[in-house]
Amino acid sequence: MKAQESGGAPRAATRPAQLGSVQIGGGAPVVVQSMTCTPTEDAAATLAQVRALAAAGCDIVRVTLPNAAAVPSFARVCAKSPVPVVADIHFDYRLAIAAAESGAAKLRINPGNIGSWDKVDAVIDAAGEHGCAIRIGVNAGSLDPAVDAREGLTLPEKLVASSVEFVRHFENRGFSNIVLSAKAHDVVTTIETYRALSRELPQVPLHLGVTEAGTREQGTIKNAVALGVLLSEGIGDTLRVSLTADPVEEVPVAWGILQALGLRRRGPEIISCPTCGRTQVDLIPIAEEVERRLRGVDKPISVAVMGCVVNGPGEARGADIGVACGRGSALLFKKGEVVRKISEDAIVEELMREIEAL
Amino acid sequence: MKAQESGGAPRAATRPAQLGSVQIGGGAPVVVQSMTCTPTEDAAATLAQVRALAAAGCDIVRVTLPNAAAVPSFARVCAKSPVPVVADIHFDYRLAIAAAESGAAKLRINPGNIGSWDKVDAVIDAAGEHGCAIRIGVNAGSLDPAVDAREGLTLPEKLVASSVEFVRHFENRGFSNIVLSAKAHDVVTTIETYRALSRELPQVPLHLGVTEAGTREQGTIKNAVALGVLLSEGIGDTLRVSLTADPVEEVPVAWGILQALGLRRRGPEIISCPTCGRTQVDLIPIAEEVERRLRGVDKPISVAVMGCVVNGPGEARGADIGVACGRGSALLFKKGEVVRKISEDAIVEELMREIEAL
Repeated sequence: MKAQESGGAPRAATRPAQLGSVQIGGGAPVVVQSMTCTPTEDAAATLAQVRALAAAGCDIVRVTLPNAAAVPSFARVCAKSPVPVVADIHFDYRLAIAAAESGAAKLRINPGNIGSWDKVDAVIDAAGEHGCAIRIGVNAGSLDPAVDAREGLTLPEKLVASSVEFVRHFENRGFSNIVLSAKAHDVVTTIETYRALSRELPQVPLHLGVTEAGTREQGTIKNAVALGVLLSEGIGDTLRVSLTADPVEEVPVAWGILQALGLRRRGPEIISCPTCGRTQVDLIPIAEEVERRLRGVDKPISVAVMGCVVNGPGEARGADIGVACGRGSALLFKKGEVVRKISEDAIVEELMREIEAL
Repeated sequence: MKAQESGGAPRAATRPAQLGSVQIGGGAPVVVQSMTCTPTEDAAATLAQVRALAAAGCDIVRVTLPNAAAVPSFARVCAKSPVPVVADIHFDYRLAIAAAESGAAKLRINPGNIGSWDKVDAVIDAAGEHGCAIRIGVNAGSLDPAVDAREGLTLPEKLVASSVEFVRHFENRGFSNIVLSAKAHDVVTTIETYRALSRELPQVPLHLGVTEAGTREQGTIKNAVALGVLLSEGIGDTLRVSLTADPVEEVPVAWGILQALGLRRRGPEIISCPTCGRTQVDLIPIAEEVERRLRGVDKPISVAVMGCVVNGPGEARGADIGVACGRGSALLFKKGEVVRKISEDAIVEELMREIEAL
């Protein structure tokens, strides 16, 4: 796979981590992921959500393994999932080992809450034996108490110190199939932490995320700012957008961020204006209807839906297909040329017909 | 006003532009703005929208002046607006002069579509006489044809070339009360263009925006990525988030971007987790209800609404106030201390009561 550029900065040259057929880092496209919120004990519900996440565009999906009773169900999910499954483990190293034995492609642990280095080593050895990657997941909300207690360190410095200690331990044990995250809910902390991680541990693929980012509206903004800034600097090999919402809703946000920076492309882009006192058609419902109808379309095309004659013809001409509206009608553009004039009530239908014919 | 820092980078030291009581650039806080979409001829409807935008957090509001018939109504809007009004002018320099005479605090023109330098100069002189600022608004959708035709230039280079030419003209005429924008619908083009503008014209306050960014969901992401990257580099003195939606909805997105980067603060921040297979309360409606009820609250507090025992207590302890949920109940935290245990159905009420008491 080719290395990518992102708004200028070359992507950081990290080591690849391998999760079955999916590679994180080492120049691979930025991997999109999310996490199920169903009870893992319910294999059918969890598998249905894994499939919905994969269909929405997740390259890998994380599933929590909260207790031993959920292991058989977790194993069924791994066996039937269309994408590699990541086990989310907290506190109990035996669950991490069980996940490795059950077909997880990656184990997500926070070594700081596993209890001892011996237990962490047991997880590393199980991962090595079963060909799993490990994500070292440091989190501001559950920092290693020994690091948290160090005086004179800022939160980003604590997150980095904890991360460096863990990565060194894994590498010293000869295990390098790792991905690293160090999440905080604060955007500035997130940006500063990941910049420092990329500097201090340039070899390690980084999993980007803002934890506890909040509800859909506020969370989308926080994720887009933090991940956008980092990705624009070439930092980040996989990302998970966290929203307090159905996890399937996280996936288009992740793709939107990657698409905005030209890092990956999935489906159409709509260029539509904010409307103003010059607009003489009812543009908002037209643009929303076009967006809704394009949801099932995979073609990486640009579609302009413009309200007036100031910027409309220019933008519509630049898109693969577009309309520039006037009073009660619109000019239809295709590949830079005016095709014909259409009436306001036929805009959506005619546009969709032309898109299908492309 | 004090210069601000934004996630590390110091803000670019631009010259101040003055719009009545509001200053853009020169170290002032980043100014939030939007634009009405009512017919300007309808002064009552336009004023109502100006007031709604100001109440939502706009420091200034732009209103289009599309024709001479709208001038009296525009003047009434200027006279009664609670915030400085910016006139949006296209094509006809006489409308720009009429706007200056009618009480506009700033004129937004694209010198490339005004027709001649003589006409631009007439606008500059009217602005000087009436104490208006001018925004030079270059737009990829309506580039000066002479610049657009130049061979071998990328779109960002064309936008910058056009901008530099206009700014030089204004400054040579002794007029420096200017703000500059050069908008494109593409995020990477936007980032590259504004970085170059900040380098080439470091003295000029910059108005950030992604034009034709699309509908609410996609537009929020594109704006947050582009404006987030630029603001994190210290670039940008005022911003307008463009969405194909009610303009009042643009304002919280603008504030969300500024708040994420610690540049300005308005109202509460909610820290809520994405839920997962560990969550044992119905968290999404709880977080959404808390967000809805906090909409009217102006206190700059942080409120944590967390679903489980892994990161919940840490995050709830770090916030001004918060809950960490368990099975059917939650621990209430205030300023880092556990206050009491509350039952699931009382979480929202108890949290709101404590917030009001803060």
